[in-house]
Amino acid sequence: MKPFMDGDFLLSTQTARTLFHEYAESMPIVDYHCHLDPWEIVSDRKFENITQLWLGGDHYKWRQMRSNGVPEEEITGSAPDRVKFQRWAQTLEMAIGNPLYHWSHLELRRYFGYTGCLNGDTAQEVWDLCNEKLQEDSMSVRNILRRSGVTLLCTTDDPADDLKAHEQIARDDSCETQVLPAWRPDRAIGIGKPDYPDYIGKLSAASGVEIDSFRKLKEALGTRMDYFQERGCRVSDHGVDYVVFAPADEDEVERIFSKRLKGEELLPAESRVFQHAVMMFLGEEYSRRGWVMQLHYGCKRNNNSRMYRQLGPDTGFDCVNNEASASQLSDFLNCMDEKGALPKTIIYSLNPGDDAAVGTIIGCFQDGSVPGKIQQGAAWWFNDHKTGIQAQMTSLANLGLLGNFIGMLTDSRSFLSYTRHEYFRRILCDLIGGWVENGEYPADWKALEKIIRGISYNNAVRYFGFDVPAVEGGKR
Amino acid sequence: MKPFMDGDFLLSTQTARTLFHEYAESMPIVDYHCHLDPWEIVSDRKFENITQLWLGGDHYKWRQMRSNGVPEEEITGSAPDRVKFQRWAQTLEMAIGNPLYHWSHLELRRYFGYTGCLNGDTAQEVWDLCNEKLQEDSMSVRNILRRSGVTLLCTTDDPADDLKAHEQIARDDSCETQVLPAWRPDRAIGIGKPDYPDYIGKLSAASGVEIDSFRKLKEALGTRMDYFQERGCRVSDHGVDYVVFAPADEDEVERIFSKRLKGEELLPAESRVFQHAVMMFLGEEYSRRGWVMQLHYGCKRNNNSRMYRQLGPDTGFDCVNNEASASQLSDFLNCMDEKGALPKTIIYSLNPGDDAAVGTIIGCFQDGSVPGKIQQGAAWWFNDHKTGIQAQMTSLANLGLLGNFIGMLTDSRSFLSYTRHEYFRRILCDLIGGWVENGEYPADWKALEKIIRGISYNNAVRYFGFDVPAVEGGKR
Amino acid sequence: MKPFMDGDFLLSTQTARTLFHEYAESMPIVDYHCHLDPWEIVSDRKFENITQLWLGGDHYKWRQMRSNGVPEEEITGSAPDRVKFQRWAQTLEMAIGNPLYHWSHLELRRYFGYTGCLNGDTAQEVWDLCNEKLQEDSMSVRNILRRSGVTLLCTTDDPADDLKAHEQIARDDSCETQVLPAWRPDRAIGIGKPDYPDYIGKLSAASGVEIDSFRKLKEALGTRMDYFQERGCRVSDHGVDYVVFAPADEDEVERIFSKRLKGEELLPAESRVFQHAVMMFLGEEYSRRGWVMQLHYGCKRNNNSRMYRQLGPDTGFDCVNNEASASQLSDFLNCMDEKGALPKTIIYSLNPGDDAAVGTIIGCFQDGSVPGKIQQGAAWWFNDHKTGIQAQMTSLANLGLLGNFIGMLTDSRSFLSYTRHEYFRRILCDLIGGWVENGEYPADWKALEKIIRGISYNNAVRYFGFDVPAVEGGKR
Repeated sequence: MKPFMDGDFLLSTQTARTLFHEYAESMPIVDYHCHLDPWEIVSDRKFENITQLWLGGDHYKWRQMRSNGVPEEEITGSAPDRVKFQRWAQTLEMAIGNPLYHWSHLELRRYFGYTGCLNGDTAQEVWDLCNEKLQEDSMSVRNILRRSGVTLLCTTDDPADDLKAHEQIARDDSCETQVLPAWRPDRAIGIGKPDYPDYIGKLSAASGVEIDSFRKLKEALGTRMDYFQERGCRVSDHGVDYVVFAPADEDEVERIFSKRLKGEELLPAESRVFQHAVMMFLGEEYSRRGWVMQLHYGCKRNNNSRMYRQLGPDTGFDCVNNEASASQLSDFLNCMDEKGALPKTIIYSLNPGDDAAVGTIIGCFQDGSVPGKIQQGAAWWFNDHKTGIQAQMTSLANLGLLGNFIGMLTDSRSFLSYTRHEYFRRILCDLIGGWVENGEYPADWKALEKIIRGISYNNAVRYFGFDVPAVEGGKR
Repeated sequence: MKPFMDGDFLLSTQTARTLFHEYAESMPIVDYHCHLDPWEIVSDRKFENITQLWLGGDHYKWRQMRSNGVPEEEITGSAPDRVKFQRWAQTLEMAIGNPLYHWSHLELRRYFGYTGCLNGDTAQEVWDLCNEKLQEDSMSVRNILRRSGVTLLCTTDDPADDLKAHEQIARDDSCETQVLPAWRPDRAIGIGKPDYPDYIGKLSAASGVEIDSFRKLKEALGTRMDYFQERGCRVSDHGVDYVVFAPADEDEVERIFSKRLKGEELLPAESRVFQHAVMMFLGEEYSRRGWVMQLHYGCKRNNNSRMYRQLGPDTGFDCVNNEASASQLSDFLNCMDEKGALPKTIIYSLNPGDDAAVGTIIGCFQDGSVPGKIQQGAAWWFNDHKTGIQAQMTSLANLGLLGNFIGMLTDSRSFLSYTRHEYFRRILCDLIGGWVENGEYPADWKALEKIIRGISYNNAVRYFGFDVPAVEGGKR
Repeated sequence: MKPFMDGDFLLSTQTARTLFHEYAESMPIVDYHCHLDPWEIVSDRKFENITQLWLGGDHYKWRQMRSNGVPEEEITGSAPDRVKFQRWAQTLEMAIGNPLYHWSHLELRRYFGYTGCLNGDTAQEVWDLCNEKLQEDSMSVRNILRRSGVTLLCTTDDPADDLKAHEQIARDDSCETQVLPAWRPDRAIGIGKPDYPDYIGKLSAASGVEIDSFRKLKEALGTRMDYFQERGCRVSDHGVDYVVFAPADEDEVERIFSKRLKGEELLPAESRVFQHAVMMFLGEEYSRRGWVMQLHYGCKRNNNSRMYRQLGPDTGFDCVNNEASASQLSDFLNCMDEKGALPKTIIYSLNPGDDAAVGTIIGCFQDGSVPGKIQQGAAWWFNDHKTGIQAQMTSLANLGLLGNFIGMLTDSRSFLSYTRHEYFRRILCDLIGGWVENGEYPADWKALEKIIRGISYNNAVRYFGFDVPAVEGGKR
């Protein structure tokens, strides 16, 4: 029996261990998609206790606590932090096989030096240990980033955001991590949302463009893209129900936009036409600027109306949807390609059943301009676990070139989530190491080093064109 | 090489073997969903020969015989029982990797003491051995239940059923197994079926309520639920094409019901509105009574019209469908939750591609009232095999709390199917044992015992609130 | 660590090795579905260099080269063959885990005796070695077929094809491989295609029937089926977006056909009605003639319009689609069965998520006339890799009788692709060997030999009724 989560955790062969310890373990991290709050980096925040750090905003954990029969009062309510931590520790005991079990214990080991198991019985000792450690300077958010080897991270930002936090960080030489904005214009596209006209007002103010037509909306977005680009933005992100293909002429789009600005409700088909039109404009802009377009789809959000009224969005009430059309996704990419305006693109579906469709669609739009121009993103959200990561990489290898994969991102709100890169790299090395041990790929260490270092770090650095050096060999 | 199906069958690590033999093997069985005929328990039936027991009604086996080129005459027709058994034995030889291969040999080992392999050559010796054993008292159905450790089982019953068999069993102290009815109102919901008006007549008679309106239908169903509850019912079951979300006002539902009672055919959309309305009423009743609601969907039945005319339903001509909307399932549960009327619910889809959607939807409606209030049911029907059981539990572990899973049911028409619990528990122990051996969960035997005994038995006992004791430690 | 691709490649247990080396390895090949050009067999073509052989038409490889950032000029363009080969060698290095990595190296080993690894550094030595070997007589296409043990192959042919190549091969006693035509009437069904009326003209000419009505179309097709049958055809093939169930009366079909012949465009629903009607006619003909019907669906083709204009179809721009209805597939088969006109049928979906639906649908239409009358085809195209082959056979075993599976086909345009049969058989033997080693099937060597030889060769020979002998035991 292997000890619980020791240095060779998830590494089941000698080759896997060599690949991880020699090539992957020491690579830095470029986190090209996360939800960290840049103001916490500005202030170099420290956390008062482990409940604030772990349970303050992590809806992954909240979900599981509800599933364990914990009342909401002791999850997001006014119960004392110590009680909430106890409930989480008790929940974790039932979470056998869940990635939260591994992530939590990796975080306890790497950041707090705790090598035991967190459960109802040990909760007090973990509480005491963590809270003591959290007082140390080494646990400020900048120090966590530094200790985690994060050379660069991209936050997630609305076009109307002023990016003041990013400006402050950029001017502050003491922050070793580059913190770049990422462009997420969901609110500008979500024409069906009740507050859409209000948002357009906000965007007008931010851009200095009076948005009274679709043409003006595009102008405003272009202005804001310039603003983002000046502050280092290289990547966009879109969260959509599904990727829509619904071309229409410009007049029709203007009519729809104008109808909505008057406060009228749109038909679903009108919203789709509008989504298509904005995406086509944005794709062209991304392509011209060399930005990467991320498409996240296949999610149905805020399923529990009662809890939505109580807690708002992003509180643990989302699910996988199964209605996205592979056909429309393909036609959408083709439509951009036809205009010579298909940017580098990363596609993430929340439905693991879409792997084969996505993996073959990306193969239809590689144009020889750059290795892996169109990527399938790393196993996303509900799929970000051992079997999900294995499945995504196996599918990628089966259908395309795994060697060009840009690898892991955290997609997280927590500064401790960088252990997910370790988790991912262990699974990567175990998968590839297993193939080598099984005679399915030669023990060509030069090729293997290039592949492992590439997927761990270098491929993403080159793909996004970030201004950090690749790490080609030897330890960091 | 491991011997064929020995005591450590499917247990590939030492930890798996310990978990199974120490904790799982001796646990009793609570079979919360099966299709046994309670009258056979009343009469304590014995079977004349193995063909009657195995091939009398088991459409799983019939399907495979047809697939092996056996003419219908020798499957469900008038060929002698010995011939039918021969054809089954020959079919089994080709069924390498099929769960029927394992189930059949487990049944031969556990109930008949036969440790060889059944095939065309050994059919005669198996025939002789089994038929001799079947004459023994130990092979009456009550003794099979007792020997299998079944403390409680739930049959599947129509609201119009008088439950006389259940009453007789309850009065008979010599039956060691509790036999409870389960409420399956498919015929009351299936408004599109040709015999629907006839069925409403039958339900009127059974309930003493003259059903001439939707309001009266609800009254009649409530009356019958009281009747079922008095006889120990704690669980309902629904077989639907897919879970429908189609709200409408009460007047519209009355109009639709009235139209159908007049003998008119309904539009598909009208049937959906009706299904939604009845389900909402029933969910509220279940919630109030503390009943569990089971939803089975994703099946297309009676696909072969020629054979349907010849043999009727449930004869081996059903398939997995791939059209169920995750979105509607989620909206349906939300609609009940909004009314504060979402009962404990178990969701089973026949399409294994729905695992991720179901596993994330259940997480949206856990309300902290009870651990695992909303469950994903065990791998159902066509998925009830080694890889299907592994996949369902792995998905559950990835997305939620496997430790709260209520585990296995037989869903069977045969008294010998209790070996499926052994099969399930071996796979469970192998999965969890593998994680422990691999350093993915600590060798915390106290926690492991709780989880294994829970999934094997205790979780279901507590979840349904059955009046049988949990088994907390030490052997039974 | 196992050596790279040695004699026990992919065989992880002793039983697997025994099954492969004793039973599978030496079996001949019957390739019941491929895309070889029969004229190359007539002329017994030799290839000038490895680029012509490997990269002349293989869009699997082109796709990966594009994905590696190779410009089109160096893939399908006018760059020198040596440059193209260099780019392919460099691409292969990144293709870790991809079946092309294994296929390419199997081909280098089996046909060229090269046991190293092809990459950018070794490309020159491989280029030299291969091109030298290609000059030898042993590398003519007939000799490749002979050395590969191919007793019979079926090409893919349009109903209007004159089959002159097949006639020449049949008259030539020096060709040891039977080369039969297969009937692929996609163009006769594809009524929505722009050149449909032209095609009908061509079919009129070939059949000698003036096709001015749907009735006449059927007469023409019947005439051509007679022609194909006289030349040994036993199998048809259909590539459809999805299998349609859209019955209509004969007059409606005549109206639709007539409308299209006049050059008018059809509504999508009209095309579906037409597809259904032609398929029903053909199924009846296949059934009467004892032909096998192959249905390939779940593909979306020619997704990249820009490249389609440049290169045409079958150039690497197709993807998996996810819109096929299991329900319509089932109703379609039922409709044929109702008329007593359901032929032996093989179903292939490109979407691996359809496995469970297909595996259960085939079980609904087995009629006892022949073992495995309705088959799920081997893992197709994008699924033809280690995990895809394992998944398809595991699904088949779970849901039906793996022992009756008709096994592998190449579906290839290349004469070197017969190593895919070796690849498939290794995976088959590893799967079954693993079950035996794990105590899940007895070490009954007689039964195992029958199953392994059956799936490798004998089942297909018997299923199609080809005029080649089965190989029952002992080495070939």
